[in-house]
Amino acid sequence: MDKVKRAERVIVMTRVLCGLPNQIIPYGRFCEMFDLAKSSVSEDVAMIQKAARDWNLGEVETITGAAGGVRFRPRVLGSEVQAFVASLCEKLNAPDRMLPGGYLYLSDLLADPEIVRKIGLIMAGPYYGQGVDFVLTMETKGIPVATMTAVALNVPLVIARRSSKVYEGSAVNITFPDGKGGIETMSLARRAAQNGQRALIVDDFMRHGGTARGMISLMAEFGVSVAGLAFVLAQEAKAPLSQLPEHPLMLFTEDKERDALKVRPAPWLEQIA
Amino acid sequence: MDKVKRAERVIVMTRVLCGLPNQIIPYGRFCEMFDLAKSSVSEDVAMIQKAARDWNLGEVETITGAAGGVRFRPRVLGSEVQAFVASLCEKLNAPDRMLPGGYLYLSDLLADPEIVRKIGLIMAGPYYGQGVDFVLTMETKGIPVATMTAVALNVPLVIARRSSKVYEGSAVNITFPDGKGGIETMSLARRAAQNGQRALIVDDFMRHGGTARGMISLMAEFGVSVAGLAFVLAQEAKAPLSQLPEHPLMLFTEDKERDALKVRPAPWLEQIA
Repeated sequence: MDKVKRAERVIVMTRVLCGLPNQIIPYGRFCEMFDLAKSSVSEDVAMIQKAARDWNLGEVETITGAAGGVRFRPRVLGSEVQAFVASLCEKLNAPDRMLPGGYLYLSDLLADPEIVRKIGLIMAGPYYGQGVDFVLTMETKGIPVATMTAVALNVPLVIARRSSKVYEGSAVNITFPDGKGGIETMSLARRAAQNGQRALIVDDFMRHGGTARGMISLMAEFGVSVAGLAFVLAQEAKAPLSQLPEHPLMLFTEDKERDALKVRPAPWLEQIA
Repeated sequence: MDKVKRAERVIVMTRVLCGLPNQIIPYGRFCEMFDLAKSSVSEDVAMIQKAARDWNLGEVETITGAAGGVRFRPRVLGSEVQAFVASLCEKLNAPDRMLPGGYLYLSDLLADPEIVRKIGLIMAGPYYGQGVDFVLTMETKGIPVATMTAVALNVPLVIARRSSKVYEGSAVNITFPDGKGGIETMSLARRAAQNGQRALIVDDFMRHGGTARGMISLMAEFGVSVAGLAFVLAQEAKAPLSQLPEHPLMLFTEDKERDALKVRPAPWLEQIA
């Protein structure tokens, strides 16, 4: 067989890397595919690294050692993040977004494949290399963004339920204050998490923090540590929810007179390179 | 500025195409990026097409005309689909999968990012070019695979709820027989779907077909046609659920004596090229 040309090889390698985010692909895999020496594969990888850097395609890292290889971490450029979140805020601040009772209609944004994919990448950003074993969310509306965050980090998605289900086997149930004076319950299958693991909590909306605190307590029950919390939209609070890192995309304040919410981008987004 | 080299250009273009599945990217976008004539961009695209064909990376199509450009549709090779689904069946047929009452523990598989991503691609496969406007699922367990199917098709994901929620505005509620002698309710925000649209129904599990029939009725209420139904695991039935195309990944039969389910790959997967 003729050797495969470099331009063709880098197309194939780029496709493989894009399809397996945050995973170390051993050089050996590419050596075998193309019947090539490691030195040639290294040159190809160097070319992909350069293109990724020059064109802001994400992070392409080479890892040395026995378990070494090349790893792709999709990232969104800081300026693109800021423009994207500003456009989300603009949509959310439109008057037709408000529902009776001071609620915001978010479902269409959380349904859009490009928006959800981009939110997943932004949420994953601060948590690459943080030893996250799984993403945790509470049903229902946060599941699509939590799925995309888990895919970017290449870790499982674990979904807490409002009540335990027969098809999930034995479960740990907790009750937690909903932050509005009531009590809610949350349930997670025993098989879903192991002692000593590390979770990233993702949710679409955080107002009083009841659900988020519930998820933190639930993780404590499983002996799982929490790396941080990521929200699509969170209430601007005087005090933080906990001592854990928080990464909301957008913050809102209540405008009681107009019975409306005012939404702005979270300040930490300004620091993304 | 020096012209960007071909190998570097095809890396960038491959990355852009992978990130925007089932979307027509106009040639003009690449001409501008690289300050190149359309003829050179065409040659680059032809090279990506050839690599995609030779290495089974998915479908790269060129679309002519005013709204023309290049479109990438990720696909999984037939032999890979068959091996993947066979391995899922093997996992599901393991004795420790059975839960009391004849239920199967599926949650860990539906949590795995690579499994969910691959299922999304397989489910999207028969529906590229079928005019699907959105993917519909019923909360909760099917949402991750439905998200990945929607991302592959580049259409929104719409989630039906068990009851209407204040933060989703006015809703259409229906009741439907659950197929086991009971009645359930299903709710969808009015804003979530429009008359004349076309939906692909995705769910994780189908036993009596109550929920699936409920989703078909719900779509009729909105004047939305249904392109087909895709399930991760469906009961092997004597009669089809409806006259709509069905694409289950796996079929199961009940083994009443052992109080267990027996799972096998769905026959249509054999026809994937």
